[in-house]
Amino acid sequence: MNDGECGCRYKMTVSYDGTAYSGWQIQPNGPSVQEQIQNALFFLLGDAVHLSGSGRTDAGVHASRQVCHFDAPDFDCPEMLMRLNTVLPETVRILSLDPTTENFHARFSAKSKFYHYIIHLDPVCPPFKSPYCLHLRKKLDLDLLKEAAKKFTGTHDFSSFANSASEGSAAINPVRTIYSINIVPEEGGVRLEFHGNGFLYKMVRNITGALIEVATGKMALEQIDALFAAKDRRKAPSGAPAQGLFLVNVEYD
Amino acid sequence: MNDGECGCRYKMTVSYDGTAYSGWQIQPNGPSVQEQIQNALFFLLGDAVHLSGSGRTDAGVHASRQVCHFDAPDFDCPEMLMRLNTVLPETVRILSLDPTTENFHARFSAKSKFYHYIIHLDPVCPPFKSPYCLHLRKKLDLDLLKEAAKKFTGTHDFSSFANSASEGSAAINPVRTIYSINIVPEEGGVRLEFHGNGFLYKMVRNITGALIEVATGKMALEQIDALFAAKDRRKAPSGAPAQGLFLVNVEYD
Repeated sequence: MNDGECGCRYKMTVSYDGTAYSGWQIQPNGPSVQEQIQNALFFLLGDAVHLSGSGRTDAGVHASRQVCHFDAPDFDCPEMLMRLNTVLPETVRILSLDPTTENFHARFSAKSKFYHYIIHLDPVCPPFKSPYCLHLRKKLDLDLLKEAAKKFTGTHDFSSFANSASEGSAAINPVRTIYSINIVPEEGGVRLEFHGNGFLYKMVRNITGALIEVATGKMALEQIDALFAAKDRRKAPSGAPAQGLFLVNVEYD
Repeated sequence: MNDGECGCRYKMTVSYDGTAYSGWQIQPNGPSVQEQIQNALFFLLGDAVHLSGSGRTDAGVHASRQVCHFDAPDFDCPEMLMRLNTVLPETVRILSLDPTTENFHARFSAKSKFYHYIIHLDPVCPPFKSPYCLHLRKKLDLDLLKEAAKKFTGTHDFSSFANSASEGSAAINPVRTIYSINIVPEEGGVRLEFHGNGFLYKMVRNITGALIEVATGKMALEQIDALFAAKDRRKAPSGAPAQGLFLVNVEYD
């Protein structure tokens, strides 16, 4: 059913509140975003459909714009988008749905990814923000934060900042390029904007954890160089919690 | 224990996500915000405390800044604020807690109130916004909305726009003054900002319901005058749903 010209491969952009989900990918225990959408597609199409995401997001991580693809019999995209959003819970929204070519692959065609990590710094965190940030009850030195962020930009072996179980492979190449980490002050706190050609398993949260250690004075700035050299996840600080992380966009050619 | 000079009456500002609550006021069925805070104070003080709010908010209505007062033995306010926020669920946050005079009353001393009603107009509502807005799947004429809003400003008998069971009294005076209703476009939709000397039961939601009827072309603008004259709630359009409404502030001298 997939001949590449008939519009039988579809590209879909999805936004979700990760609070209630075990992550993007189908899990044996707990509901996943992928499962919600696959169930909705099965209900509407009468056919089982497999979604391929641009990558996993962990339990509790949010997405403003996750991208996935799937193959299915021909249908009217605007109508299907509307019907999916009627069937799906409000915590999962389809933002766009378009036919694409058979050589498009949500993961392998991805050129770069954007992640944001939200840190709330004021003593009280508004109830409307708390599911979507890390509430840090410590002083954060923004100058040190910026200096530390510079250490992570560029091309590095990120072994010390990636958990094992990286996607799909035990011996994945640990070299990635981070184009930029922008530190953007926002009401009550700060937003860390990551842009890179790809991110290893838990890499954004692990880098954020290290950035916080430096910016709160718990770790020296130079220690980051030593951690890169060690290539050992166990030597590096803990990762930051899931609820502050947003997959913001996936870029394709 | 309340001599007015000893700091035994306290003024407290509270923010809450109303989604999971039956409203501000203690209800026989379902959890209320008042109950949550009273339970937390009882746990921390060892004394039963009664909170008096500036007014009720209904089930599902949110508050950026609700104000209440209570009488209690002397305590250190900054420490109590911190302890309350540790004990309370993240959906309820104490923003400020200060000693006040015995003649301060959260409801009777209130000079004016600010409410916002959030309407999302884009075809898809982000999962992060949907618990905090009305997602209106219709075209809204902003010019008509502004014209209709003007009809509600000023001093009127709001009988047609108030449900019965107005706070505490069967024969409450239905005359109120709305100082302004600002129509503020925001990303994906529009925000209605209400400022008045007081609002009757469900009055903001009922006015919003009427404004939407006019701005979607379902009701003529002039019909508002007829509704004011009728002084009959049954003749007016339905109220807008709770989840779009925020009590934003209460003003005191």
